[in-house]
Amino acid sequence: MRSCYEVDNLSTQRDGDEIVSTGGAREVNLLIPGPTPLPPDVRAAMAGPMVNHRGEEFGQVLAEVLRGLQQIFQTTAPVVPFAASGTGGLEAAIVNVLSPGDRVLAPSCGMFGDRFGAIAKAFGADVISQQAPWGTAVDPAAVAEALSRHRGVAAVLLTHNETSTGVANPVQAIAEVVRPTGALLLVDAVSSLAALDLRTDAWGVDVVVSGSQKALMAPPGAVFLAVSARAQEAARSARMPKAYFSFERALAELAPQVAFTPFTPAIPVISALQVSVRMILREGLPSRFAHHHRLAQATRRGIMALGLELFCDPSCASDTVTAVRLPQRIDGKALLRRLRQDHGVALAGGQGKLEGVIFRIGHMGYVQESQILSALEALEHVLAQLGHPVKRGAAVEAAAAGLRAR
Amino acid sequence: MRSCYEVDNLSTQRDGDEIVSTGGAREVNLLIPGPTPLPPDVRAAMAGPMVNHRGEEFGQVLAEVLRGLQQIFQTTAPVVPFAASGTGGLEAAIVNVLSPGDRVLAPSCGMFGDRFGAIAKAFGADVISQQAPWGTAVDPAAVAEALSRHRGVAAVLLTHNETSTGVANPVQAIAEVVRPTGALLLVDAVSSLAALDLRTDAWGVDVVVSGSQKALMAPPGAVFLAVSARAQEAARSARMPKAYFSFERALAELAPQVAFTPFTPAIPVISALQVSVRMILREGLPSRFAHHHRLAQATRRGIMALGLELFCDPSCASDTVTAVRLPQRIDGKALLRRLRQDHGVALAGGQGKLEGVIFRIGHMGYVQESQILSALEALEHVLAQLGHPVKRGAAVEAAAAGLRAR
Repeated sequence: MRSCYEVDNLSTQRDGDEIVSTGGAREVNLLIPGPTPLPPDVRAAMAGPMVNHRGEEFGQVLAEVLRGLQQIFQTTAPVVPFAASGTGGLEAAIVNVLSPGDRVLAPSCGMFGDRFGAIAKAFGADVISQQAPWGTAVDPAAVAEALSRHRGVAAVLLTHNETSTGVANPVQAIAEVVRPTGALLLVDAVSSLAALDLRTDAWGVDVVVSGSQKALMAPPGAVFLAVSARAQEAARSARMPKAYFSFERALAELAPQVAFTPFTPAIPVISALQVSVRMILREGLPSRFAHHHRLAQATRRGIMALGLELFCDPSCASDTVTAVRLPQRIDGKALLRRLRQDHGVALAGGQGKLEGVIFRIGHMGYVQESQILSALEALEHVLAQLGHPVKRGAAVEAAAAGLRAR
Repeated sequence: MRSCYEVDNLSTQRDGDEIVSTGGAREVNLLIPGPTPLPPDVRAAMAGPMVNHRGEEFGQVLAEVLRGLQQIFQTTAPVVPFAASGTGGLEAAIVNVLSPGDRVLAPSCGMFGDRFGAIAKAFGADVISQQAPWGTAVDPAAVAEALSRHRGVAAVLLTHNETSTGVANPVQAIAEVVRPTGALLLVDAVSSLAALDLRTDAWGVDVVVSGSQKALMAPPGAVFLAVSARAQEAARSARMPKAYFSFERALAELAPQVAFTPFTPAIPVISALQVSVRMILREGLPSRFAHHHRLAQATRRGIMALGLELFCDPSCASDTVTAVRLPQRIDGKALLRRLRQDHGVALAGGQGKLEGVIFRIGHMGYVQESQILSALEALEHVLAQLGHPVKRGAAVEAAAAGLRAR
């Protein structure tokens, strides 16, 4: 139960020639919307010796990881790896399939949706921004309306899981209104892949971007893009400048049994993914999705039992992260600091215009039920200290009942 | 002595639910020009628990790493981190200080010099390519001549260590001819930093790019750029498109005591660098440079004792990698395969037009003297098997004599 926690050993200080850890054996309960806790076997894989990234052995490992990811992306399209974090993957998706001046629709309901559009704009796309209120989902009907009003949209940029607000967008319904128009659909699934169902091929998504450090249960540093045949076709004539993030160069090095990368890959992250992707496929995607749903339900019940308000409507709340409205008169920074310092619980604050308005509990990847229960207990304790009335024991009881009900 | 070797455990295969390593305790002697062997403490640091990349603890670690890197870059300028490999860093250098149409001089003597120029061209620069024969260094007089012939050059792109040919370029002498023209000097030091002297501030280099996986003794996945005040000034008006690799965004998150990144950093690589940068600074840069020179000298003596020909003139041979001309009638692929399979020695072949012409022995970072001696012994053995006449024992004797002489 404890092995998934973060050991609090980073407050190191120099003492002569020694590296001294001041944290001892205390562990941190890491519940942020990524990076996420690592399974022990994944951590062990990270400590392996360095290898030749152009050697047969590594080529087989990368090929295995990419084949596994195809199953997780639910696609037969190639999965292209880059050494980068999620935002680098979003840039790769854009610059490979678009040309400067291309019209792009960027529906957004949060910070990551805004970022996707901003990247396209930085590379010269004619971006039509479409804002849904933060805390709600992108409305497929609004997307359809925008696509009928603005002719010649080359691509729609969509965030599957808006971690800044805790909202999951309805990819399938949006794909259904995008496909008849001929526009490409590019989906940011950085924090949703392996947590929320995403049927790349069946729903007709053209590029899906995901990152290593969320529900894939590996450390940050690698990003992966499923690239459909239509997207590959678009890439052949796309004129946005690119070098590091070139699909063409990356695709040329891939093969089913032995895969390489044009530039040095994030070797330890690939080694970590060899372990975590096997874990995910052994358990099966439906079980992984159910796990995330169970943790999310338990978290929401616990939060409501504390008398706190969920930031999103339940109809669009993501199973990967729960956004909670800060009660009036509660200082969010003090709340998070006490949770971290006194209870070893790491939660996340609000981002951008939601700073000081919400806090967020991540429950993606390797997060365990025990982590949710102990975080709710600590939250109850700190809220009481800060003067917010709580009914003692109610949060853990409500969450545990939810977990038992399954 | 053996702890730095690569354990040959990546030939894993699925056996029911078990991950089976077929390699056992056999270790690989990894002597490629990066990635390089990892010190045991660096490997251990990689296996640490995941942490909150927006938390105070990680911010302190990153700040410590960046302060240490400033010493290694020999600069007081900020060092900007990105999660990417070396080529991503080259792209970052270009897109942040240049505008489309800017005239750029790209002197090259190998594959990495060519790549630097190609990235600038992909982003719309007016690139003047200047080729020195592969195996020779870029000539400062030729750079001066080109700068006087082509007016209005905005930047010169220079590879410090051309790993494709084993040549080190004279950065200081080239900086001296570039500075009076007012052009920016961007230097690719991906494989030279901490191995070859590079005085960023004293020589007046504007942007220096380096990677985690070479002489910095950490795994691949992070790249760092020292950005001078002049480069920061140029960045304010540079119009090449950028998003992920934006200096402006990255610089905004840096502070001397607590540093963050706009996008999720390669956390395990930063943890690894916390250990390896401390190791480098404790030993001192002069000792690190001397170590590389000693290994290089020993390698070259051993190669010559085998009757083989060095690819580069000694006057420009790099202390980080030795390029060796393949003897006639020796198949390079067979040579490298036998070394790897029968002796556990991993060397590198030639790249691009040097494939089948040379092979390369990397000796950068944590490579130990013992690795060089055993590689030379194995090389002698395999050359004899392949029918190349060798004097038994001569290579190891010559190399060892060089190491003892210091």
